[in-house]
Amino acid sequence: MAQSPITLRSADFAAWYQDVVLQGDLAEPAEIVKGCMVIKPNGYAIWELLQRQLDDRFKATGHKNMYFPLLIPESFLKKEAEHVEGFSPELAVVTVAGGKTLEEPYVIRPTSETIIGHYFGKWIHSHRDLPLLINQWANVVRWEMRTRMFLRTTEFLWQEGHTAHATEAEAVEETMKMLGVYAEFAETWMAIPVIQGEKTEGERFPGAVRTYCIEAMMQDHKALQAGTSHFLGQNFAKASGIQFQDEKGGLAHAWTTSWGLSTRMIGAMIMTHGDDDGMVCPPRLAPQQVVIIPVIQKPEVRQQVLDWCTQLKKDLEAQSFAGTPVRVHLDARDVQGAKKVWEWVKKGAPIRLEIGPKDIEKNSVFLGRLTTLILPPSNQSSWLKSARTPGWARSVVR
Amino acid sequence: MAQSPITLRSADFAAWYQDVVLQGDLAEPAEIVKGCMVIKPNGYAIWELLQRQLDDRFKATGHKNMYFPLLIPESFLKKEAEHVEGFSPELAVVTVAGGKTLEEPYVIRPTSETIIGHYFGKWIHSHRDLPLLINQWANVVRWEMRTRMFLRTTEFLWQEGHTAHATEAEAVEETMKMLGVYAEFAETWMAIPVIQGEKTEGERFPGAVRTYCIEAMMQDHKALQAGTSHFLGQNFAKASGIQFQDEKGGLAHAWTTSWGLSTRMIGAMIMTHGDDDGMVCPPRLAPQQVVIIPVIQKPEVRQQVLDWCTQLKKDLEAQSFAGTPVRVHLDARDVQGAKKVWEWVKKGAPIRLEIGPKDIEKNSVFLGRLTTLILPPSNQSSWLKSARTPGWARSVVR
Repeated sequence: MAQSPITLRSADFAAWYQDVVLQGDLAEPAEIVKGCMVIKPNGYAIWELLQRQLDDRFKATGHKNMYFPLLIPESFLKKEAEHVEGFSPELAVVTVAGGKTLEEPYVIRPTSETIIGHYFGKWIHSHRDLPLLINQWANVVRWEMRTRMFLRTTEFLWQEGHTAHATEAEAVEETMKMLGVYAEFAETWMAIPVIQGEKTEGERFPGAVRTYCIEAMMQDHKALQAGTSHFLGQNFAKASGIQFQDEKGGLAHAWTTSWGLSTRMIGAMIMTHGDDDGMVCPPRLAPQQVVIIPVIQKPEVRQQVLDWCTQLKKDLEAQSFAGTPVRVHLDARDVQGAKKVWEWVKKGAPIRLEIGPKDIEKNSVFLGRLTTLILPPSNQSSWLKSARTPGWARSVVR
Repeated sequence: MAQSPITLRSADFAAWYQDVVLQGDLAEPAEIVKGCMVIKPNGYAIWELLQRQLDDRFKATGHKNMYFPLLIPESFLKKEAEHVEGFSPELAVVTVAGGKTLEEPYVIRPTSETIIGHYFGKWIHSHRDLPLLINQWANVVRWEMRTRMFLRTTEFLWQEGHTAHATEAEAVEETMKMLGVYAEFAETWMAIPVIQGEKTEGERFPGAVRTYCIEAMMQDHKALQAGTSHFLGQNFAKASGIQFQDEKGGLAHAWTTSWGLSTRMIGAMIMTHGDDDGMVCPPRLAPQQVVIIPVIQKPEVRQQVLDWCTQLKKDLEAQSFAGTPVRVHLDARDVQGAKKVWEWVKKGAPIRLEIGPKDIEKNSVFLGRLTTLILPPSNQSSWLKSARTPGWARSVVR
């Protein structure tokens, strides 16, 4: 590939990461808001594809989506002693609203256990109300000192699942089930092999009894925590008064769980698959799975080439991959071909088809392939090998 | 229908509205966070269906989704004089973060013109960068004095489109195009006839040159503003320095637009279609289009009835309606049939199928129908008529 304006991984992995994010149109630092980022179209499109997949899995396992307030009364966080101790240093606090100083400040949610716990306490009365299985897609704010785009930002997007159960065994089962959902998703849709395990006491979620996570290995040989699932025991149920009448008529505290996965996953994707030329999107989560680049040197052939490319786009879109029509982008901009190619390499498009008048004569196309193949778990060791003969694309190349 | 715990519309429309929201599992007031609400599963599911539809339309008209920070430096809002005057009384302000008082406070976005304008100013250099067409799905906060669930809440969910153009004509065209997208969506997917028009100067968006909206007629004979599209002229471009080199090499300010539609639409849906028994969902946005209610009086027939209902559910799900598989819910809870029926009436499920052993013998079901039909625009006058013979459902009833 041509000379790259992206720092080499071997030279400076952190600088490489930042270059890939910026030049792949994934995000840029929001220098005017401390530690925040602007998620750009290519990054946000990955997040949307990821959201839809995970959301389907949450619904298939019986969870319903709800939405709770962004702002939490400051006193709520203090209900669970370890929770407030863990999050206090990271809180953003609203002290003025509607032109007046508030009697009780609100914190912007760093996570929603305390406010959701309050409502669980209102809604749960009997064992018949259990299990209560909900999920929320939301933004959260944690005032971090050192931030890196996607990996650790002051504001980030995530989902947080919250569930309440009648027994400890059921809550533990839920905790492990959702950890398994994260692992399956990471492995089969993101092509990121992960290790599932329990975090140490020091890394435990503040207020949890046990925290489990999926850890993925990055190219700098560091592990990245990529999704967590917490067994909360009865800690938050006691703090928020989540009690129910059991089948024998006695009153008991519920057992709760919470589990979250965030925009950090896009960082994991970059550090697993990216190379010295930039982003590499695993095909199932690629916003553009195939990019068609017309190569037009003479104006008089422009229309012929564009027409041919438009037809090819339609042919490809009529096929499906991983359950949805193939996502094809025809880059018809009046920009030099090599510049377009380089842009799509940096954005990580799995397949490029470069097509000029001679290709059309020969009824063939140049196929450039970037991405790693997603193979079944039995072949995990070969995940990071690239493949050059994607059958589903070749079959329609005329 | 049986006696209703819902206030009659004729007795007190505002109380009726609140009852429908609460008893339809749509939302409840978040009494602990001033003017906020918890969006409950039935309400959030409608929002998700609405989001997917609108998002498809935004993408089809060339817009890309991005995500900008929740927090905006206070000084940014002051860049546009009318904008700050309009929003100042409604701002929630973060003054403390990470345990320290901030040098410059942040406001929680009441809308994102100022922060997005800042980035447009960074990204736009040449006429080749235009038009720039983006959209954001986000939560916003406006400290309102009088709030009503969905219609006006301190925090609400919405989408905000932001675009920049090289010419006034293109920006005006965009403003009107997106107003048209809102109108088409409201009419064909929500069965809400709307009037498109310009707002008066007093109701204009702070900083806009002209504000257009879709207004829908509610059952209390009041109009509800249900989506707005603003032609911003060069006001925000001048405030944020959005300039580009035109084709002749001169420097010009861009012309911008913004347009938004929020969770208020769910309020519009309730006040258009709801009746004295509760919510009525237009079928295309109904989270459960068909609810199957097994009527089981004797335990020995339970399994037979459930098996039959499960097969019916599969048969229905194999059919599609409005482009997606029919959404069918089998309410297999061990709860009295009449109680279930009443719950689904209040939630607004378009079609209920009530099935007992005798129905199975006769190979038929009882079909209860709540909803209004969505007819083509030529038949708008009959939109509010209910219909009792939905062919697509009847065809699989065995």
